[in-house]
Amino acid sequence: MAKQPVLTPQADDFPRWYQDVVAKAELADNGPARGTQIIRPYGYALWERMVAEVDERIKAAGAENASFPLFIPQSYLTREADHVEGFAPELAVVTHGGGKELEEPLVVRPTSETVIGEYMARWINSYRDLPMLLNQWANVVRWELRPRLFLRSTEFLWQEGHTAHVDQADAAAYAHRILRDVYEDFMVSVLALPVVVGRKTPDERFPGATNTMTCEAMMGDGKALQMGTSHELGQNFARAFDIRYQDAEATEQLAWTTSWGVSTRMMGGLIMGHGDDAGLRLPPRVAATQVAVLVVRDGDGVGERAHLVTEALRTAGLRVTLDDRTDVGFGRRATAWELKGVPVRIELGPRDLADEQATVVRRDRGEKATVGLGGLVDHVVGLMDEIQDAMLAAARARRDERTVDTTTVAEATEAARTGFARIAWDAIDDEALAAMKADGITVRCLQGPDGEVATSDDQPGAVATVARAY
Amino acid sequence: MAKQPVLTPQADDFPRWYQDVVAKAELADNGPARGTQIIRPYGYALWERMVAEVDERIKAAGAENASFPLFIPQSYLTREADHVEGFAPELAVVTHGGGKELEEPLVVRPTSETVIGEYMARWINSYRDLPMLLNQWANVVRWELRPRLFLRSTEFLWQEGHTAHVDQADAAAYAHRILRDVYEDFMVSVLALPVVVGRKTPDERFPGATNTMTCEAMMGDGKALQMGTSHELGQNFARAFDIRYQDAEATEQLAWTTSWGVSTRMMGGLIMGHGDDAGLRLPPRVAATQVAVLVVRDGDGVGERAHLVTEALRTAGLRVTLDDRTDVGFGRRATAWELKGVPVRIELGPRDLADEQATVVRRDRGEKATVGLGGLVDHVVGLMDEIQDAMLAAARARRDERTVDTTTVAEATEAARTGFARIAWDAIDDEALAAMKADGITVRCLQGPDGEVATSDDQPGAVATVARAY
Repeated sequence: MAKQPVLTPQADDFPRWYQDVVAKAELADNGPARGTQIIRPYGYALWERMVAEVDERIKAAGAENASFPLFIPQSYLTREADHVEGFAPELAVVTHGGGKELEEPLVVRPTSETVIGEYMARWINSYRDLPMLLNQWANVVRWELRPRLFLRSTEFLWQEGHTAHVDQADAAAYAHRILRDVYEDFMVSVLALPVVVGRKTPDERFPGATNTMTCEAMMGDGKALQMGTSHELGQNFARAFDIRYQDAEATEQLAWTTSWGVSTRMMGGLIMGHGDDAGLRLPPRVAATQVAVLVVRDGDGVGERAHLVTEALRTAGLRVTLDDRTDVGFGRRATAWELKGVPVRIELGPRDLADEQATVVRRDRGEKATVGLGGLVDHVVGLMDEIQDAMLAAARARRDERTVDTTTVAEATEAARTGFARIAWDAIDDEALAAMKADGITVRCLQGPDGEVATSDDQPGAVATVARAY
Repeated sequence: MAKQPVLTPQADDFPRWYQDVVAKAELADNGPARGTQIIRPYGYALWERMVAEVDERIKAAGAENASFPLFIPQSYLTREADHVEGFAPELAVVTHGGGKELEEPLVVRPTSETVIGEYMARWINSYRDLPMLLNQWANVVRWELRPRLFLRSTEFLWQEGHTAHVDQADAAAYAHRILRDVYEDFMVSVLALPVVVGRKTPDERFPGATNTMTCEAMMGDGKALQMGTSHELGQNFARAFDIRYQDAEATEQLAWTTSWGVSTRMMGGLIMGHGDDAGLRLPPRVAATQVAVLVVRDGDGVGERAHLVTEALRTAGLRVTLDDRTDVGFGRRATAWELKGVPVRIELGPRDLADEQATVVRRDRGEKATVGLGGLVDHVVGLMDEIQDAMLAAARARRDERTVDTTTVAEATEAARTGFARIAWDAIDDEALAAMKADGITVRCLQGPDGEVATSDDQPGAVATVARAY
């Protein structure tokens, strides 16, 4: 019987391949209400790993977790003009509660700058209370007309950080620190996605921000995915919500605030950044199951030995699943573990056992190796870092290969059909920007001539990365 | 200057004491919309500890985490008659989304039996898919007319487990396992709250359940707090949502389901179960800060030594905060750490350092000891278990002392003014039940004559625990 391809090949139809992987690897499902989603256990286990890694970095950056309400009085949203203009079309509104019509409708939070601003104003009195560094892991709602699982959903899970500082320099430094030490570090070292980090152009800014910085990853089809953003909000929200403090000279000052977030959208980035025609490919650091131990066929004590191997690997600190469902065909199970992207598969059958060895299969390269059982644990432990590094190197090579340095808008537009184009920011005038936009191409971010995040909207020598995007 | 009492004494007004602690220990705040709450960083750190401990136990019981939508089509709620009757008065309803009126209003989940039932029906085909054991950590909304922080809030955080089984016996065993191995074990061994575990009477059951089991803790004023519940749902939701499977003989069968949850309400239980007139008292296992190292006054290298002590304690695995804010008076800081309930305070000043010793203060008993710096880490590590055990023993002694075995409803009613009363369940007829209810007294749970959870609503020899309750 010929092996049935379970997924649409990427080259045939990348979006359909994505849908197939999400469904068949049991990552997520559409919810009953339009645009809502269900994250299934296998997908949620990946999200839990992401949360643990990002949370650790957020705490290391000094922020503390808290929980703010889901429902925000509608009037709060209107206090910052750009903010309400940006979010008004996406709001879900509660008009009835406890069987009665509400006097003031409640908005289901699309983001929490407003309500957190209100409470920062109450809690902050003196410069000694600053910086105030808060974060919450929460669900938010933004009405989506063209929903797509993980990438654009009406409800999604995220973390949103909100901080207040004594001056612009401190706020800017913190927003930048989160961007690099939390987001970029996590995406590169855990997700193995070599993101391009830069400044958003004014029309791509968060509503109410004075500066939005972003991490942009290249997906398997060459398109960009915005993976996380960090915003300087200037004094816009401090003014709207009256976040004031007394400085060391007892003079009243307006605070400077930031906000920053990453969401379940990163799940989409993980899938599209590494997946291939056989399914997911997970870097070991984010994999909920790092190693699957497969009993090829039972008999001659294979089951017991597979159990011992599993325990030994767990003792070595790995996340291991034992697959001894020998009532299901071996080929079918091996394909399923490939689909699920588990970094290493260990296959153990009676013949292997007779030779005191096992077959070790790397998901990232599909390579098989025969390894003696005596050295198996050390070998597999070593593979974790090796695969992690190889996946990052491969993703970086692919990104670099598909990133073209261009000098004209026409060249950049052409290059953006298959990947990223780099072009001097001052080579793009308003007309060119509009023409690219009509073609589905946007400026993903700006970098200074040194490759760092651009320091202003019109930094001399700034380079734009342009691409199509999700 | 006389020491100002910062909290209303418990004996004067227990509810006001509770409000004071919640506010002054910076645990939580009222949100802007009625009944909503903000969990502040110190409170949230405690909740994070609870989540970690409960989540570990849930996973050990084989359940997997997932995420289901916040918005549920209104029609879903109506499919199980008791369920909708129970929840209809408490619903928050979204009528507008994306700037338009919705065709079908969406309910903000009060609990997720309905939507999870719908998806279990899609995912379950064969008996091989059972048991299906799911859990989610989420926010839910139930409109509250008399909100109180942590205890009754319009939005609260919780976990809700939902499982499907092949038969009643398996469902009942699992619901009981969660009650005891997850909830009771967590409450007793981490929160140090000796809960009474039993079966709810029919009129206290979850809407749609055939059996609700509960953990009830005694608060400092002798009232009961329902800390968590586990429900057998029989085939009610399986019938409403068509959760069917093929058994081993290929015959179609209706599944049996359960659900179970604990919430941020446990924060209220922790506060009221252990707190005293000086504030919170936290068992070490749930304390976000287990040890506060206070620099009494700087000079003679005290700061440096306090830092070393802090690091040594952290290396020993403890959660430690160094308080070297010597610009704030020592007494004020000591009082603040008491208020926050930190189990152990280490006070280090120049004189202590000269003698190579420190003062160690236990929050649970207020005892002070002088400990040589050489043995300090071992001493404090040992104190963690000692305090944990002592707090449980003290809570148990208090509970037993305030629990009275009674034989008549009149005696039980009298005893329930100050604590729990135990009385034969068959001594309470409908009239007595109504009279007690009018007096604010309810049956908290039923236990069999062996002290186990009662196996039916009319088990011979069943004993009722009656009390006033939050």
